[in-house]
Amino acid sequence: MIEAVGYATSHSFTGLKPHKFERDDAKPNEVVIDVLYCGVCHSDIHQAKNEWGNTVYPCMPGHEVVGRVSAVGDTVTLHKVGDLVGVGCMIDSCRECAPCREGDQNYCEGPNSWLATYNGPMIPAKKAPNEANRYNRDNTFGGYSNVLVVPEDFVLKIPAGLKLEAAAPLLCAGVTTYSPLKHWGVKAGDKVGIVGFGGLGDIAAKMAIAMGATVTLFTTDEEKLEEAVRIGATGVLEKKLTEEVDPTNPLTRTFDLILSTVPKKHDLNPYLPLLKRDKTMVVMGDLGPLEPINNMQTAFHRNGVAGSLIGSIAETQEVLNFCAEHGIAHDVQLLDIKDINDAYKEVEKGDVRFRYVIDLATLNAQDAH
Amino acid sequence: MIEAVGYATSHSFTGLKPHKFERDDAKPNEVVIDVLYCGVCHSDIHQAKNEWGNTVYPCMPGHEVVGRVSAVGDTVTLHKVGDLVGVGCMIDSCRECAPCREGDQNYCEGPNSWLATYNGPMIPAKKAPNEANRYNRDNTFGGYSNVLVVPEDFVLKIPAGLKLEAAAPLLCAGVTTYSPLKHWGVKAGDKVGIVGFGGLGDIAAKMAIAMGATVTLFTTDEEKLEEAVRIGATGVLEKKLTEEVDPTNPLTRTFDLILSTVPKKHDLNPYLPLLKRDKTMVVMGDLGPLEPINNMQTAFHRNGVAGSLIGSIAETQEVLNFCAEHGIAHDVQLLDIKDINDAYKEVEKGDVRFRYVIDLATLNAQDAH
Repeated sequence: MIEAVGYATSHSFTGLKPHKFERDDAKPNEVVIDVLYCGVCHSDIHQAKNEWGNTVYPCMPGHEVVGRVSAVGDTVTLHKVGDLVGVGCMIDSCRECAPCREGDQNYCEGPNSWLATYNGPMIPAKKAPNEANRYNRDNTFGGYSNVLVVPEDFVLKIPAGLKLEAAAPLLCAGVTTYSPLKHWGVKAGDKVGIVGFGGLGDIAAKMAIAMGATVTLFTTDEEKLEEAVRIGATGVLEKKLTEEVDPTNPLTRTFDLILSTVPKKHDLNPYLPLLKRDKTMVVMGDLGPLEPINNMQTAFHRNGVAGSLIGSIAETQEVLNFCAEHGIAHDVQLLDIKDINDAYKEVEKGDVRFRYVIDLATLNAQDAH
Repeated sequence: MIEAVGYATSHSFTGLKPHKFERDDAKPNEVVIDVLYCGVCHSDIHQAKNEWGNTVYPCMPGHEVVGRVSAVGDTVTLHKVGDLVGVGCMIDSCRECAPCREGDQNYCEGPNSWLATYNGPMIPAKKAPNEANRYNRDNTFGGYSNVLVVPEDFVLKIPAGLKLEAAAPLLCAGVTTYSPLKHWGVKAGDKVGIVGFGGLGDIAAKMAIAMGATVTLFTTDEEKLEEAVRIGATGVLEKKLTEEVDPTNPLTRTFDLILSTVPKKHDLNPYLPLLKRDKTMVVMGDLGPLEPINNMQTAFHRNGVAGSLIGSIAETQEVLNFCAEHGIAHDVQLLDIKDINDAYKEVEKGDVRFRYVIDLATLNAQDAH
């Protein structure tokens, strides 16, 4: 057993507090990682507060982890002690279903789906067929901690040229937006709309621009319009769009893809008329019932609304390499882990445009009990 | 002017009555058609009753028209007097926008969109940019009448081997389901789900089977289950599906495409877990706000919900030829036009599995005034 310490919450209504726990020793195929940085993702808040109704307590969030390998199991060949590595949303998958065999671990169709870096398997045993427990555990503890133990093939390499703290958010926010940009085939000359200008919108816009697309960022926050220009996009206030189709709106039917990164229920209908015929709006920010979609809009130009969930392991490595190559990164603000509960409040208010990244050097084992 | 007679309604709340009117003489590129049969489509009811809020009165429905050419304009080369022909949902389009140039007239992006066979341009002048009136008319009168005048390139050829009355519903119900089956690439070995077993569901299932797919028909009507088997499909009662994902349901993640033909708001969420990863549910029956879609379902397997609207002129000819070649047709019941209001009531109740087709020989000009 490895003595570990992190920040966790025991209930939906209490904040995160220092928490001592034990990690299993590394299996032959596993890597032990000393955590250096961990990004703060909006889904950390959703899960800490059980807003998706799937939280197992204690809940120790963190799935944007950058660290250094401190030990490796006997059969590990992909990483060695001292390597700078990353861990994203998944630490394992069933490895047997069609998506896993095809490299889409994030769409694992095994009995428990993939194993999340924290909060356990995506399908908990009690909801799995015959109460299967593929991973022999109901819970996992994430990167708000000093140490992580992960199978080597779910560990990413941090390429040279990426600042470590800026690499962290790429492991969830980055791949979550990179994957649909790739899957829906964004290419030079395309016009891409990004709804929401937080941690996902920021990196999505930067990557789409690097792919050669023209990007419009839709935001509810007037103060973010200048920021959009600063990163090379056009900013448009959401309230400028109306639900009624305005055929004289110059944005109408000009977009090849629109990504919604908004982490809560919002009306998609004002955006649907902006899509070209046969194009899609992809929602990755909001997991739950969407506002009703008006099929009078989607049918008339054969548009679609689709979902997308993080990205595969290969795509996670790709997004790290892509951002290193293009010199792209989140604007990050380092966070003392003792301030995590205040940071959550700010993120919930929706006016954080940068990404908070916890500096695990601020974690003091003496605080935990 | 051509003296004409048909059945129309002057208000949303009155039934259809005999109605005398005048049609413009044929322009050089137009064809005059003596109407023989006209299918009764659920959208006729929606529009007669102004349920989409876009009805111009008097409203004379009918866009599943089969007839015989009685005269042609000077420049017409595609049809000649005596030919058996069909007219579907459109009688013109802008001919200039990208979709029109690419043969997708049903997705016309001209200022008034396409010109509907009845109830005028899809975008009426008052909603068009600068109040454009591309077709110089606000209203059109459909096939519940003795005569139609239509540009030759919006007139279809009825292939030998199709019964005339059975060809009529192919011109809307047929092409509306054929188009998404083609667009989403249904091929031999695929598994296709069809939600709703009315006029659209019936022909959609028959065509998908002819394309080599395995078809499951979802219905709320227990009495239709045997009918599903009779046409070569499997019938499943909708109430057997639950909104909660049941991973032991053998239908889960087995469908390559699901088409919803249900002409009213209904919950799509029970169907989304049945889609394979990356596959789509297409809604063509319901034009308006859909029930909220749960993105917890769509995101987890990268599924989409899309709309689809009728089909192109080329696809309309294709569906006629396809059904002639494969010996497929709707089960139709001929209707005396004087019984149209009673037929509407039955269709609205949703327990008509066959397609009503008006026999225009029952139209008596003496009744109209």
